[in-house]
Amino acid sequence: MSKNYVNYGKCSAGKPGSTMGITGVRFNLSPMSDDFVAIILDAIKHVDLSKVWSETDHISTVYRGKEEAVFDALKAAYVYAYREGVHMTLEATVSKGCPGDSDSDYTLALENPRVNKEQTQDIDFPVIGKFALYPMGSDNYMGTIEKVVNEGIDRGVVTGSGHYGTNLGGSVQDVFDYLEYVSNTVGKEVSHYVSQFTLLCNVPEGEVK
Amino acid sequence: MSKNYVNYGKCSAGKPGSTMGITGVRFNLSPMSDDFVAIILDAIKHVDLSKVWSETDHISTVYRGKEEAVFDALKAAYVYAYREGVHMTLEATVSKGCPGDSDSDYTLALENPRVNKEQTQDIDFPVIGKFALYPMGSDNYMGTIEKVVNEGIDRGVVTGSGHYGTNLGGSVQDVFDYLEYVSNTVGKEVSHYVSQFTLLCNVPEGEVK
Repeated sequence: MSKNYVNYGKCSAGKPGSTMGITGVRFNLSPMSDDFVAIILDAIKHVDLSKVWSETDHISTVYRGKEEAVFDALKAAYVYAYREGVHMTLEATVSKGCPGDSDSDYTLALENPRVNKEQTQDIDFPVIGKFALYPMGSDNYMGTIEKVVNEGIDRGVVTGSGHYGTNLGGSVQDVFDYLEYVSNTVGKEVSHYVSQFTLLCNVPEGEVK
Repeated sequence: MSKNYVNYGKCSAGKPGSTMGITGVRFNLSPMSDDFVAIILDAIKHVDLSKVWSETDHISTVYRGKEEAVFDALKAAYVYAYREGVHMTLEATVSKGCPGDSDSDYTLALENPRVNKEQTQDIDFPVIGKFALYPMGSDNYMGTIEKVVNEGIDRGVVTGSGHYGTNLGGSVQDVFDYLEYVSNTVGKEVSHYVSQFTLLCNVPEGEVK
Protein backbone atom coordinates (compact mmCIF):
# COMPACT_ATOMS: atom_id res chain seq x y z
CA MET A 1 0.00 0.00 0.00
CA SER A 2 1.40 3.37 -0.90
CA LYS A 3 1.24 5.93 1.84
CA ASN A 4 -0.33 9.30 1.25
CA TYR A 5 2.28 11.46 2.92
CA VAL A 6 1.43 15.10 3.32
CA ASN A 7 3.54 17.82 1.79
CA TYR A 8 3.18 21.39 2.96
CA GLY A 9 6.11 22.67 0.90
CA LYS A 10 3.93 25.13 -0.98
CA CYS A 11 2.67 26.67 2.23
CA SER A 12 4.34 29.59 3.88
CA ALA A 13 3.47 31.63 6.91
CA GLY A 14 1.60 34.83 6.21
CA LYS A 15 0.14 33.57 2.93
CA PRO A 16 -3.37 32.19 3.38
CA GLY A 17 -4.07 29.15 1.21
CA SER A 18 -7.54 30.47 0.48
CA THR A 19 -7.80 33.77 -1.36
CA MET A 20 -11.52 34.01 -0.60
CA GLY A 21 -11.19 34.88 3.09
CA ILE A 22 -13.00 31.72 4.10
CA THR A 23 -13.62 31.23 7.82
CA GLY A 24 -14.37 27.76 9.08
CA VAL A 25 -15.25 25.85 12.19
CA ARG A 26 -14.86 22.21 13.16
CA PHE A 27 -16.94 21.31 16.18
CA ASN A 28 -18.28 18.57 18.42
CA LEU A 29 -21.44 18.61 20.49
CA SER A 30 -21.38 16.25 23.48
CA PRO A 31 -24.73 16.13 25.29
CA MET A 32 -24.17 14.03 28.42
CA SER A 33 -27.39 12.07 28.11
CA ASP A 34 -28.43 8.61 27.01
CA ASP A 35 -30.38 10.44 24.27
CA PHE A 36 -27.26 12.02 22.78
CA VAL A 37 -27.80 10.68 19.25
CA ALA A 38 -31.27 12.20 18.90
CA ILE A 39 -30.19 15.48 20.50
CA ILE A 40 -27.21 15.93 18.16
CA LEU A 41 -28.96 14.83 14.98
CA ASP A 42 -32.08 16.91 15.68
CA ALA A 43 -29.96 20.00 16.25
CA ILE A 44 -27.74 19.52 13.20
CA LYS A 45 -30.75 18.93 10.93
CA HIS A 46 -32.52 22.02 12.27
CA VAL A 47 -29.71 24.43 11.25
CA ASP A 48 -30.28 26.36 8.03
CA LEU A 49 -27.12 25.54 6.10
CA SER A 50 -27.89 27.55 2.99
CA LYS A 51 -25.14 30.08 3.78
CA VAL A 52 -22.32 27.68 4.69
CA TRP A 53 -20.61 24.68 3.20
CA SER A 54 -21.12 21.81 5.63
CA GLU A 55 -19.80 18.32 6.22
CA THR A 56 -20.46 15.93 9.11
CA ASP A 57 -18.28 12.85 9.45
CA HIS A 58 -17.83 10.34 12.27
CA ILE A 59 -15.50 12.67 14.13
CA SER A 60 -17.04 16.14 13.90
CA THR A 61 -18.91 18.70 11.81
CA VAL A 62 -17.33 21.41 9.65
CA TYR A 63 -18.95 24.65 8.46
CA ARG A 64 -17.13 26.98 6.04
CA GLY A 65 -18.08 30.30 4.53
CA LYS A 66 -18.30 33.94 5.42
CA GLU A 67 -17.38 34.62 9.05
CA GLU A 68 -20.87 35.86 10.02
CA ALA A 69 -22.50 32.85 8.39
CA VAL A 70 -20.19 30.40 10.17
CA PHE A 71 -20.88 31.89 13.61
CA ASP A 72 -24.60 32.09 12.84
CA ALA A 73 -24.76 28.39 11.93
CA LEU A 74 -22.54 27.30 14.83
CA LYS A 75 -24.64 29.16 17.39
CA ALA A 76 -27.77 27.62 15.87
CA ALA A 77 -26.35 24.08 16.18
CA TYR A 78 -25.54 24.70 19.85
CA VAL A 79 -28.78 26.38 20.93
CA TYR A 80 -30.88 23.83 19.02
CA ALA A 81 -29.08 21.05 20.93
CA TYR A 82 -29.95 22.64 24.27
CA ARG A 83 -32.27 20.53 26.43
CA GLU A 84 -33.40 21.64 29.88
CA GLY A 85 -31.25 19.90 32.46
CA VAL A 86 -28.93 18.18 29.99
CA HIS A 87 -25.27 18.99 30.57
CA MET A 88 -23.53 19.53 27.23
CA THR A 89 -20.16 20.62 25.96
CA LEU A 90 -19.50 22.32 22.66
CA GLU A 91 -15.91 22.14 21.51
CA ALA A 92 -15.09 24.29 18.50
CA THR A 93 -12.04 25.25 16.46
CA VAL A 94 -12.56 28.40 14.40
CA SER A 95 -9.86 29.13 11.86
CA LYS A 96 -9.09 31.58 9.08
CA GLY A 97 -6.10 32.08 6.80
CA CYS A 98 -4.36 28.71 7.17
CA PRO A 99 -1.51 28.45 4.64
CA GLY A 100 -2.65 24.87 4.00
CA ASP A 101 -6.21 25.93 3.18
CA SER A 102 -7.56 26.18 -0.37
CA ASP A 103 -10.34 27.85 -2.32
CA SER A 104 -12.61 24.84 -2.06
CA ASP A 105 -15.47 23.61 0.07
CA TYR A 106 -17.26 26.88 0.55
CA THR A 107 -20.49 28.44 -0.56
CA LEU A 108 -21.07 31.36 -2.86
CA ALA A 109 -24.30 32.27 -1.04
CA LEU A 110 -22.79 35.29 0.65
CA GLU A 111 -25.79 37.58 1.01
CA ASN A 112 -27.77 37.66 4.27
CA PRO A 113 -25.25 35.47 6.11
CA ARG A 114 -27.19 35.36 9.42
CA VAL A 115 -29.97 33.21 8.08
CA ASN A 116 -30.55 31.43 11.42
CA LYS A 117 -30.66 34.61 13.50
CA GLU A 118 -34.42 35.11 13.63
CA GLN A 119 -34.94 31.57 14.92
CA THR A 120 -32.08 31.59 17.42
CA GLN A 121 -31.92 35.10 18.87
CA ASP A 122 -34.47 34.42 21.60
CA ILE A 123 -33.06 31.08 22.75
CA ASP A 124 -30.96 32.01 25.73
CA PHE A 125 -29.38 30.17 28.63
CA PRO A 126 -26.29 30.59 30.79
CA VAL A 127 -22.99 29.04 29.74
CA ILE A 128 -19.50 28.82 31.13
CA GLY A 129 -16.40 27.82 29.25
CA LYS A 130 -12.96 28.84 28.07
CA PHE A 131 -11.19 29.91 24.95
CA ALA A 132 -7.66 30.14 23.69
CA LEU A 133 -6.46 32.19 20.78
CA TYR A 134 -3.58 31.25 18.52
CA PRO A 135 -2.46 34.01 16.15
CA MET A 136 -0.06 32.08 13.91
CA GLY A 137 3.15 33.28 12.30
CA SER A 138 3.11 36.51 14.30
CA ASP A 139 5.70 37.62 16.82
CA ASN A 140 3.36 39.97 18.62
CA TYR A 141 0.71 37.40 19.40
CA MET A 142 0.55 38.07 23.14
CA GLY A 143 -0.36 41.72 22.44
CA THR A 144 -3.21 40.64 20.19
CA ILE A 145 -4.50 38.24 22.84
CA GLU A 146 -4.27 40.91 25.54
CA LYS A 147 -6.44 43.29 23.50
CA VAL A 148 -9.32 40.89 22.96
CA VAL A 149 -9.22 39.48 26.50
CA ASN A 150 -9.55 42.99 27.93
CA GLU A 151 -12.53 43.67 25.66
CA GLY A 152 -14.11 40.50 27.07
CA ILE A 153 -13.54 41.80 30.60
CA ASP A 154 -15.29 45.05 29.63
CA ARG A 155 -18.22 43.09 28.25
CA GLY A 156 -18.43 40.94 31.39
CA VAL A 157 -18.06 37.65 29.54
CA VAL A 158 -14.39 37.04 30.37
CA THR A 159 -14.48 35.88 33.95
CA GLY A 160 -10.89 34.94 34.67
CA SER A 161 -7.79 33.28 33.37
CA GLY A 162 -6.45 29.82 33.95
CA HIS A 163 -3.63 27.77 32.58
CA TYR A 164 -3.98 27.38 28.80
CA GLY A 165 -7.18 29.32 28.52
CA THR A 166 -9.28 32.33 29.40
CA ASN A 167 -12.55 31.67 31.21
CA LEU A 168 -15.90 32.62 29.72
CA GLY A 169 -19.30 33.03 31.35
CA GLY A 170 -22.60 34.68 30.58
CA SER A 171 -25.61 34.27 28.37
CA VAL A 172 -25.03 32.09 25.34
CA GLN A 173 -25.97 35.01 23.08
CA ASP A 174 -23.45 37.38 24.68
CA VAL A 175 -20.70 34.77 24.67
CA PHE A 176 -21.22 34.00 20.98
CA ASP A 177 -21.24 37.72 20.15
CA TYR A 178 -17.93 38.04 21.94
CA LEU A 179 -16.35 35.00 20.28
CA GLU A 180 -17.32 36.41 16.89
CA TYR A 181 -15.79 39.76 17.85
CA VAL A 182 -12.56 37.91 18.78
CA SER A 183 -12.37 36.22 15.38
CA ASN A 184 -13.24 39.39 13.54
CA THR A 185 -10.64 41.46 15.40
CA VAL A 186 -7.82 38.97 15.22
CA GLY A 187 -8.58 38.12 11.59
CA LYS A 188 -7.86 41.74 10.69
CA GLU A 189 -4.51 41.76 12.50
CA VAL A 190 -2.91 38.47 11.54
CA SER A 191 -3.10 36.43 8.36
CA HIS A 192 -3.75 33.12 10.14
CA TYR A 193 -5.43 32.55 13.48
CA VAL A 194 -7.13 29.75 15.33
CA SER A 195 -9.66 30.32 18.11
CA GLN A 196 -10.40 27.25 20.23
CA PHE A 197 -13.27 27.28 22.65
CA THR A 198 -15.35 25.04 24.87
CA LEU A 199 -18.78 26.00 26.18
CA LEU A 200 -20.72 24.12 28.85
CA CYS A 201 -24.38 24.43 29.77
CA ASN A 202 -26.43 22.88 32.56
CA VAL A 203 -23.32 22.42 34.66
CA PRO A 204 -24.18 20.26 37.69
CA GLU A 205 -22.63 22.76 40.11
CA GLY A 206 -24.32 25.70 38.34
CA GLU A 207 -22.80 28.14 35.89
CA VAL A 208 -20.50 29.64 38.50
CA LYS A 209 -18.34 32.30 36.92
CA MET B 1 -15.75 47.50 40.79
CA SER B 2 -12.25 47.67 39.44
CA LYS B 3 -11.58 45.45 36.48
CA ASN B 4 -8.68 43.05 36.47
CA TYR B 5 -7.36 43.74 32.99
CA VAL B 6 -4.65 41.44 31.73
CA ASN B 7 -1.26 42.73 30.70
CA TYR B 8 1.05 40.57 28.65
CA GLY B 9 3.65 43.31 28.14
CA LYS B 10 6.38 41.24 29.80
CA CYS B 11 5.78 38.34 27.44
CA SER B 12 7.60 37.95 24.19
CA ALA B 13 7.57 35.25 21.58
CA GLY B 14 10.34 32.69 21.87
CA LYS B 15 10.79 33.23 25.60
CA PRO B 16 8.90 30.66 27.65
CA GLY B 17 7.43 32.11 30.85
CA SER B 18 8.38 28.97 32.72
CA THR B 19 12.07 28.17 32.97
CA MET B 20 11.30 24.67 34.28
CA GLY B 21 10.12 23.18 30.98
CA ILE B 22 6.69 22.52 32.39
CA THR B 23 4.21 20.78 30.09
CA GLY B 24 0.55 21.01 30.87
CA VAL B 25 -2.83 19.85 29.72
CA ARG B 26 -6.33 21.24 30.17
CA PHE B 27 -8.99 18.68 29.34
CA ASN B 28 -12.67 17.80 29.40
CA LEU B 29 -14.20 14.34 29.50
CA SER B 30 -17.74 14.17 28.11
CA PRO B 31 -19.31 10.73 28.56
CA MET B 32 -22.63 10.83 26.71
CA SER B 33 -24.58 9.02 29.40
CA ASP B 34 -27.05 9.93 32.13
CA ASP B 35 -24.35 8.63 34.51
CA PHE B 36 -21.77 11.19 33.38
CA VAL B 37 -21.12 12.62 36.86
CA ALA B 38 -20.19 9.25 38.37
CA ILE B 39 -18.13 8.26 35.32
CA ILE B 40 -16.07 11.47 35.34
CA LEU B 41 -15.56 11.65 39.09
CA ASP B 42 -14.67 7.95 39.42
CA ALA B 43 -12.07 8.29 36.68
CA ILE B 44 -10.53 11.51 37.98
CA LYS B 45 -10.27 10.08 41.53
CA HIS B 46 -8.65 6.89 40.26
CA VAL B 47 -5.69 8.68 38.63
CA ASP B 48 -2.45 8.68 40.62
CA LEU B 49 -1.64 12.40 40.73
CA SER B 50 1.57 12.14 42.72
CA LYS B 51 3.67 13.16 39.69
CA VAL B 52 1.61 16.10 38.43
CA TRP B 53 0.13 19.29 39.81
CA SER B 54 -3.61 19.06 39.34
CA GLU B 55 -6.64 21.31 39.54
CA THR B 56 -10.27 20.59 38.62
CA ASP B 57 -12.70 23.48 38.41
CA HIS B 58 -16.22 23.76 36.98
CA ILE B 59 -14.91 24.08 33.44
CA SER B 60 -12.12 21.52 33.09
CA THR B 61 -9.16 19.75 34.69
CA VAL B 62 -5.51 20.82 34.44
CA TYR B 63 -2.41 18.67 34.96
CA ARG B 64 1.09 20.20 34.94
CA GLY B 65 4.52 18.67 35.29
CA LYS B 66 7.05 16.71 33.33
CA GLU B 67 5.83 15.82 29.84
CA GLU B 68 5.83 12.05 30.47
CA ALA B 69 3.94 12.50 33.73
CA VAL B 70 1.29 14.71 32.12
CA PHE B 71 0.62 12.22 29.30
CA ASP B 72 0.64 9.34 31.75
CA ALA B 73 -2.00 11.00 33.96
CA LEU B 74 -4.11 12.18 31.02
CA LYS B 75 -4.23 8.71 29.49
CA ALA B 76 -5.18 7.29 32.87
CA ALA B 77 -8.09 9.73 33.25
CA TYR B 78 -9.38 8.78 29.81
CA VAL B 79 -9.05 4.99 30.06
CA TYR B 80 -10.48 4.96 33.59
CA ALA B 81 -13.55 6.82 32.27
CA TYR B 82 -14.12 4.20 29.59
CA ARG B 83 -17.35 2.25 30.00
CA GLU B 84 -18.42 -0.45 27.57
CA GLY B 85 -20.91 1.04 25.14
CA VAL B 86 -20.70 4.61 26.44
CA HIS B 87 -19.79 7.12 23.76
CA MET B 88 -17.31 9.65 25.15
CA THR B 89 -15.23 12.53 23.91
CA LEU B 90 -11.96 13.67 25.40
CA GLU B 91 -10.96 17.18 24.44
CA ALA B 92 -7.44 18.18 25.46
CA THR B 93 -5.12 21.15 25.02
CA VAL B 94 -1.47 20.25 25.65
CA SER B 95 0.91 23.19 25.85
CA LYS B 96 4.52 23.95 26.60
CA GLY B 97 6.57 27.12 26.54
CA CYS B 98 3.86 29.75 26.64
CA PRO B 99 5.40 33.22 27.15
CA GLY B 100 2.57 33.90 29.61
CA ASP B 101 3.35 30.83 31.72
CA SER B 102 5.25 30.97 35.02
CA ASP B 103 7.25 28.75 37.32
CA SER B 104 4.27 27.93 39.48
CA ASP B 105 1.68 25.20 39.86
CA TYR B 106 3.90 22.23 39.18
CA THR B 107 5.28 19.35 41.14
CA LEU B 108 8.85 18.60 42.06
CA ALA B 109 8.17 14.84 42.03
CA LEU B 110 10.05 14.28 38.81
CA GLU B 111 11.31 10.70 39.24
CA ASN B 112 9.35 7.79 37.80
CA PRO B 113 6.91 10.04 35.91
CA ARG B 114 4.80 7.21 34.48
CA VAL B 115 3.29 6.23 37.79
CA ASN B 116 -0.05 5.16 36.25
CA LYS B 117 1.48 3.02 33.51
CA GLU B 118 1.28 -0.36 35.21
CA GLN B 119 -2.44 0.09 35.87
CA THR B 120 -3.32 1.52 32.46
CA GLN B 121 -1.14 -0.29 29.92
CA ASP B 122 -3.53 -3.20 29.47
CA ILE B 123 -6.72 -1.14 29.13
CA ASP B 124 -7.19 -0.90 25.40
CA PHE B 125 -10.04 0.04 23.08
CA PRO B 126 -10.37 1.64 19.65
CA VAL B 127 -10.61 5.41 19.30
CA ILE B 128 -11.01 7.87 16.48
CA GLY B 129 -10.38 11.57 16.65
CA LYS B 130 -8.40 14.48 15.34
CA PHE B 131 -5.59 16.74 16.34
CA ALA B 132 -4.20 20.10 15.35
CA LEU B 133 -0.77 21.40 16.13
CA TYR B 134 0.07 25.05 16.67
CA PRO B 135 3.81 25.81 16.82
CA MET B 136 3.75 29.44 17.97
CA GLY B 137 6.09 32.25 17.04
CA SER B 138 7.71 30.20 14.30
CA ASP B 139 7.68 30.96 10.59
CA ASN B 140 8.35 27.37 9.56
CA TYR B 141 5.38 25.89 11.37
CA MET B 142 3.94 24.07 8.36
CA GLY B 143 7.21 22.12 7.97
CA THR B 144 7.08 21.03 11.58
CA ILE B 145 3.49 19.88 11.20
CA GLU B 146 4.31 17.97 8.00
CA LYS B 147 7.05 16.02 9.77
CA VAL B 148 4.92 14.77 12.63
CA VAL B 149 1.88 14.04 10.46
CA ASN B 150 3.99 11.84 8.20
CA GLU B 151 5.33 9.96 11.22
CA GLY B 152 1.71 9.32 12.23
CA ILE B 153 0.99 7.94 8.75
CA ASP B 154 3.95 5.57 9.15
CA ARG B 155 2.60 4.44 12.52
CA GLY B 156 -0.86 3.90 11.07
CA VAL B 157 -2.58 6.21 13.54
CA VAL B 158 -2.98 9.19 11.20
CA THR B 159 -5.86 8.19 8.98
CA GLY B 160 -6.48 11.28 6.89
CA SER B 161 -6.72 15.03 6.88
CA GLY B 162 -9.71 17.28 7.05
CA HIS B 163 -10.28 20.97 7.40
CA TYR B 164 -8.65 22.29 10.59
CA GLY B 165 -7.37 18.96 11.75
CA THR B 166 -5.63 15.69 11.03
CA ASN B 167 -7.63 12.52 11.65
CA LEU B 168 -6.55 9.91 14.18
CA GLY B 169 -7.58 6.30 14.59
CA GLY B 170 -6.29 3.18 16.30
CA SER B 171 -5.91 1.67 19.72
CA VAL B 172 -6.04 4.18 22.54
CA GLN B 173 -2.56 3.11 23.62
CA ASP B 174 -1.03 3.67 20.17
CA VAL B 175 -2.80 7.00 19.72
CA PHE B 176 -1.57 8.29 23.09
CA ASP B 177 1.98 7.12 22.30
CA TYR B 178 1.78 9.08 19.06
CA LEU B 179 0.37 12.24 20.67
CA GLU B 180 3.19 12.17 23.19
CA TYR B 181 5.71 11.76 20.36
CA VAL B 182 4.16 14.82 18.67
CA SER B 183 4.57 16.96 21.78
CA ASN B 184 8.07 15.69 22.41
CA THR B 185 9.20 16.33 18.83
CA VAL B 186 7.64 19.74 18.45
CA GLY B 187 8.73 20.82 21.92
CA LYS B 188 12.34 20.35 20.83
CA GLU B 189 11.90 22.45 17.68
CA VAL B 190 9.89 25.44 18.82
CA SER B 191 9.85 27.32 22.10
CA HIS B 192 6.05 27.39 22.38
CA TYR B 193 3.55 24.92 20.96
CA VAL B 194 -0.02 23.89 21.54
CA SER B 195 -1.39 20.49 20.57
CA GLN B 196 -5.17 20.27 20.52
CA PHE B 197 -6.87 16.92 20.21
CA THR B 198 -10.24 15.23 20.49
CA LEU B 199 -10.64 11.48 20.95
CA LEU B 200 -13.92 9.56 20.67
CA CYS B 201 -14.69 6.03 21.80
CA ASN B 202 -17.78 3.86 21.38
CA VAL B 203 -18.80 5.84 18.31
CA PRO B 204 -22.35 4.80 17.31
CA GLU B 205 -21.30 4.18 13.69
CA GLY B 206 -18.18 2.29 14.80
CA GLU B 207 -14.61 3.54 14.91
CA VAL B 208 -14.39 3.86 11.13
CA LYS B 209 -11.01 5.23 10.18
